[in-house]
Amino acid sequence: MALRRREFTALLLGGAAALGLAGRAAAEGDPLPSWNDGPAKDAIVKFVHATTDAASPDFVPVAERIATFDQDGTLWVEQPIYTQIVFAFSRVPEVVKERPELAKEEAFRAILSGDRAAIAKLSMGQLLSVVGATLTGMDVETYRDEVEAWIKDARDPRWKRPFTDLVYQPQIELLKYLRASGYRTFIVTGGGQDFVRAYSERVYGVPVEQVIGTMFDLGFKPGADGKPVLVRESKLLLNDDEAGKPEGIHLVIGRRPRFAFGNSAGDREMLEYTKAGAGARLGMIVLHDDAKREYAYGPAKGLPDTKIGTFPQALYDQAMKDGWIVVSMKNDWKRIFAFA
Amino acid sequence: MALRRREFTALLLGGAAALGLAGRAAAEGDPLPSWNDGPAKDAIVKFVHATTDAASPDFVPVAERIATFDQDGTLWVEQPIYTQIVFAFSRVPEVVKERPELAKEEAFRAILSGDRAAIAKLSMGQLLSVVGATLTGMDVETYRDEVEAWIKDARDPRWKRPFTDLVYQPQIELLKYLRASGYRTFIVTGGGQDFVRAYSERVYGVPVEQVIGTMFDLGFKPGADGKPVLVRESKLLLNDDEAGKPEGIHLVIGRRPRFAFGNSAGDREMLEYTKAGAGARLGMIVLHDDAKREYAYGPAKGLPDTKIGTFPQALYDQAMKDGWIVVSMKNDWKRIFAFA
Repeated sequence: MALRRREFTALLLGGAAALGLAGRAAAEGDPLPSWNDGPAKDAIVKFVHATTDAASPDFVPVAERIATFDQDGTLWVEQPIYTQIVFAFSRVPEVVKERPELAKEEAFRAILSGDRAAIAKLSMGQLLSVVGATLTGMDVETYRDEVEAWIKDARDPRWKRPFTDLVYQPQIELLKYLRASGYRTFIVTGGGQDFVRAYSERVYGVPVEQVIGTMFDLGFKPGADGKPVLVRESKLLLNDDEAGKPEGIHLVIGRRPRFAFGNSAGDREMLEYTKAGAGARLGMIVLHDDAKREYAYGPAKGLPDTKIGTFPQALYDQAMKDGWIVVSMKNDWKRIFAFA
Repeated sequence: MALRRREFTALLLGGAAALGLAGRAAAEGDPLPSWNDGPAKDAIVKFVHATTDAASPDFVPVAERIATFDQDGTLWVEQPIYTQIVFAFSRVPEVVKERPELAKEEAFRAILSGDRAAIAKLSMGQLLSVVGATLTGMDVETYRDEVEAWIKDARDPRWKRPFTDLVYQPQIELLKYLRASGYRTFIVTGGGQDFVRAYSERVYGVPVEQVIGTMFDLGFKPGADGKPVLVRESKLLLNDDEAGKPEGIHLVIGRRPRFAFGNSAGDREMLEYTKAGAGARLGMIVLHDDAKREYAYGPAKGLPDTKIGTFPQALYDQAMKDGWIVVSMKNDWKRIFAFA
């Protein structure tokens, strides 16, 4: 197991973080080059210094350094529709072949016809029923392989690139900066836990055990070779959205985060829970106000309304009142994608 | 944040484990002094060497080094009744004061009367209803404080010692040995997740995020000061026993364990799941055959039958057939308790 110099340095840096030296080491260069100077970047750097400097009154022990990030719209593009839904759609023809009665349902008919107007009209409930029918029934290892294979080949229609290229470069830098400062970074997503686990390590540097997401019940059954496997069942165990986010955080981590980052109404409870803890806590929320480089949607601040990733004005007002930092994609992010 | 020499050494050892050197370091002394020489101890040491030596065909990368331990009967005493049930009983008078109608139920009447014969006759379902009534309704932080306070003062009736003294010293050594070899050690218990989290770090060196247990639903509600808290509800979310153990492992870790240790029928699926993975895997199971130093129960091998921690003959036969190592408390453990 030969270690490259970079890995060895990372190992030593992990030790340095535990010793509270990481803030100093990271300060030598700009850890957040894709962030414009301004209040958002300032808030991050001040928070990291305050919580990792052993002499600070807000110092946080390494074990308690927990940072949680929503995924869709916070770490990568969620418009015009969640990537996991695109994956579910891609499986519809195959699933309908096995269960022809599904073709009679409105959602399946719309997807099979490719009628974009009809698809756009489907409710979130209808979309979830498609997810339930297409992304369950197989064992968790097969499912992971299928997501991995699909996500390597699939392309976003606007940028003609893999969906995993559409991660926000400022957030990749932030994740790395927090980790270099002794924080463990978790993804807390309304998306499927096992969907995100299939690429979280490669794309975000977040290992599978640090992905909390919507969970389905699992059946313990003999697999093809008779050896037991865990089969994805259609019964929802935890909807990791809204109040489900702090619940999922408690079940998987058991500690209240020090830092939380979201972008929509589904992240409200996670931000409230994080900020309600004692000591230094930072809550941040992305406002998608950049139609040119990404998308513009709210409806906060008069931005267009959308079914996906809704950021209502009331949430904006709550952010202002409770001291969550609103990150303007347009003003706070120098660069959005690594490829740009 | 001054580090003591011991902590600094542990930090460096963590690095050494990642480099695959830990096996060598640990081999310098006997890492398992409370284990008698024999096939069980041999199997552990061989497994650790095979999976941590970079030159071994069975080498396992650090990220995949996952070891899971049942708690009751595997890490500490579970007779004559689970410690968590003793805690639930201790809360009955206070709960009945608030909800007098409970006094009419057979289980509550038996507990309030202190009638040992009547208590012994209660079914597991009745005991769980007592747990549901006594250990829910408060927020998770208050609950943790209450468990911590209780467990410091409560005493086991046989040894007149805190329950947390009744942990098996050979297992404490095994947990440490595995961690020094780069394994992350998880508790996977049918007991309540938050109950065990209240003392897991102090007693076992297992941090809260590495405790998987039976989970109740959580309500996101304003606390006494108006700030949101997570309130323990009585709806069961995951019964982390039998098939619930591999399910809990997947939800919280997302990796199949390399090593699993149990003691009863409730651990069967965890052991099957662990052993069914590719590469080197070790399954172990404690047989309580030591009435003198601890307890003797089965009914495997003609040992007395019991409601708590049942180890049926069929499970013993499966262990023999599938290569799980049966650990005889009497023969394999030189010393059972640190105080002995």
